[in-house]
Amino acid sequence: MQKVSMNKGMSDLIVLFSSVGRRTELIRFFTNKDGIYVIGVDVSALAPAAYMCHKFFKVPNFNDAGYVDVLLDICRNEGVSLLIPLHEGEFNVLLQNRRRFEDAGCRLLLSSEEVISICQDKYNTFLFFQQNGVNTPATILPEEIEYRKTEFPLFIKPRNGMGSRYAYRITDERQLRFFIEYVPCPIVQEFIDGTEYTVDVLCDMEGQVISTVPRERIEVKDGEISKGRTVKDWRIIKATTEVAEKLKAIGPLTIQCIIDKNDNIFFIEINPRFGGGVPLAIEAGVNYPDLLAKMLSGEKINPRIGDFQDNLYILRYINSIYKKGDELL
Amino acid sequence: MQKVSMNKGMSDLIVLFSSVGRRTELIRFFTNKDGIYVIGVDVSALAPAAYMCHKFFKVPNFNDAGYVDVLLDICRNEGVSLLIPLHEGEFNVLLQNRRRFEDAGCRLLLSSEEVISICQDKYNTFLFFQQNGVNTPATILPEEIEYRKTEFPLFIKPRNGMGSRYAYRITDERQLRFFIEYVPCPIVQEFIDGTEYTVDVLCDMEGQVISTVPRERIEVKDGEISKGRTVKDWRIIKATTEVAEKLKAIGPLTIQCIIDKNDNIFFIEINPRFGGGVPLAIEAGVNYPDLLAKMLSGEKINPRIGDFQDNLYILRYINSIYKKGDELL
Repeated sequence: MQKVSMNKGMSDLIVLFSSVGRRTELIRFFTNKDGIYVIGVDVSALAPAAYMCHKFFKVPNFNDAGYVDVLLDICRNEGVSLLIPLHEGEFNVLLQNRRRFEDAGCRLLLSSEEVISICQDKYNTFLFFQQNGVNTPATILPEEIEYRKTEFPLFIKPRNGMGSRYAYRITDERQLRFFIEYVPCPIVQEFIDGTEYTVDVLCDMEGQVISTVPRERIEVKDGEISKGRTVKDWRIIKATTEVAEKLKAIGPLTIQCIIDKNDNIFFIEINPRFGGGVPLAIEAGVNYPDLLAKMLSGEKINPRIGDFQDNLYILRYINSIYKKGDELL
Repeated sequence: MQKVSMNKGMSDLIVLFSSVGRRTELIRFFTNKDGIYVIGVDVSALAPAAYMCHKFFKVPNFNDAGYVDVLLDICRNEGVSLLIPLHEGEFNVLLQNRRRFEDAGCRLLLSSEEVISICQDKYNTFLFFQQNGVNTPATILPEEIEYRKTEFPLFIKPRNGMGSRYAYRITDERQLRFFIEYVPCPIVQEFIDGTEYTVDVLCDMEGQVISTVPRERIEVKDGEISKGRTVKDWRIIKATTEVAEKLKAIGPLTIQCIIDKNDNIFFIEINPRFGGGVPLAIEAGVNYPDLLAKMLSGEKINPRIGDFQDNLYILRYINSIYKKGDELL
């Protein structure tokens, strides 16, 4: 099933990406790097990124009982030394088995359970921001709403959602009363109007921040950046680096903030994984494959915060792979 | 501003695509074809497809008064013989000026005002289906709803919408009462559960159907096919060809239907333009650039209905172009 020519025996690092899905650009930054051998797994052979890995395995759904054992077998058989999970849905089951992966010689590029719980539950994220003096929109749970005192607009989203699904701007009480029932397990936030930024942060294995690259979200489609550009705004860089250092995360973080018309920064979300737009940070000069390889070898990495190409635009479009039915992996 | 090397003087056909936006794959099928010179225009230099045309012009918004004059100037100066508009928002202003484009030696690849009105207003589409004996979900306007007699689930969408914005499945009266107010200018349809197909149809300049390629919508993102495959189902091919012939359209149509669990076909929508997934039909063997060039030269084209590669999969992913700020067109 080897798809891209590369001799595994010659590689310095064998990486396993789980739930590769449509993460083709990210995968290619790794396959293009000399010395890295890339294995991908996904529940579906219709995952386009499957066709861009050096090797691909179709695996059970991450909710299935046997999932972790299948991954562990792949790690042992293939000599994987780093597992990078790309889908939040599998983070918890992987965390529960971190020790087993490490016993198999494979590091899990994933923060602690505490950090994941802060990031995945957006009400926990709000509490984390508040407790650490980080400016964030006022946020309440449904039972805390006092309809008579509520001012609009508001923003509602699921406590545990990914992307833009079930996220709505709310302009009146009628909408609020409806969406409180319609959105699964919602939180309600003050709506902040302004310029949105996503910041790609990379932390080392000890929680030290190595790189912080803000990108302006000029246009978003389906929750993912569609047009954007890097912005070397030191205020955002410093504020985000501080947030990340308080968190003590491992590996990639994707932190969202908004700057309103009064120039206030509001931090909104922390995603404890590679964001869809991280290819821009890599293209702007932050060599993630290289940095991860060094981290894994135990080499001390000097932080390179702010060291990236400013005002680099990313313009995204849909591309396709075509396969005959009998060519599917 | 020439971006891709091609000698315009040597070309047999000079095509202008308006609102090129993210239609990179479609554009590349044309630029890859010998003898076709491709000019693109868009309101934004952040349109990724701008960087894939032989020549690109940034133009005013299609709602601006001067838009048509700018396009006409480009047609005259560049010797454009075919204008292919890609955004429905500009269809009406172009139709009102069809004669001026033809006087400038440029054919407009767009159906008549009557056809566009049937397609763009989804209640008109329903009436067209009904009047022509084409099976379609029962569809009503808000004022026709009798809440006491209503059965669920239903589907609500804007009468004039594109893509999946403001389209909701409705499961109870509370949702119906809310979304009737929330969705702009809505229609309410019987919800049909089943396998969805999009059919790429190409008509010649006289309304004869040349090609009909059904593709199963295996996964949809943001209203556009994300995973799919061609399906040589003769029942769908014949039924869709009949619909298209009754319509008397010009150029590309994108027709949506659903086959329910009782194997009934329901026709849902007709989009009078290139669909986002038409690259699959082209890749499956229907050479749109070639067929359009022949049509324009006045050559009679024999219909080639059903002549395409069956069970060809399209697996789509997001790709990026990177540009420094000073490299933007």
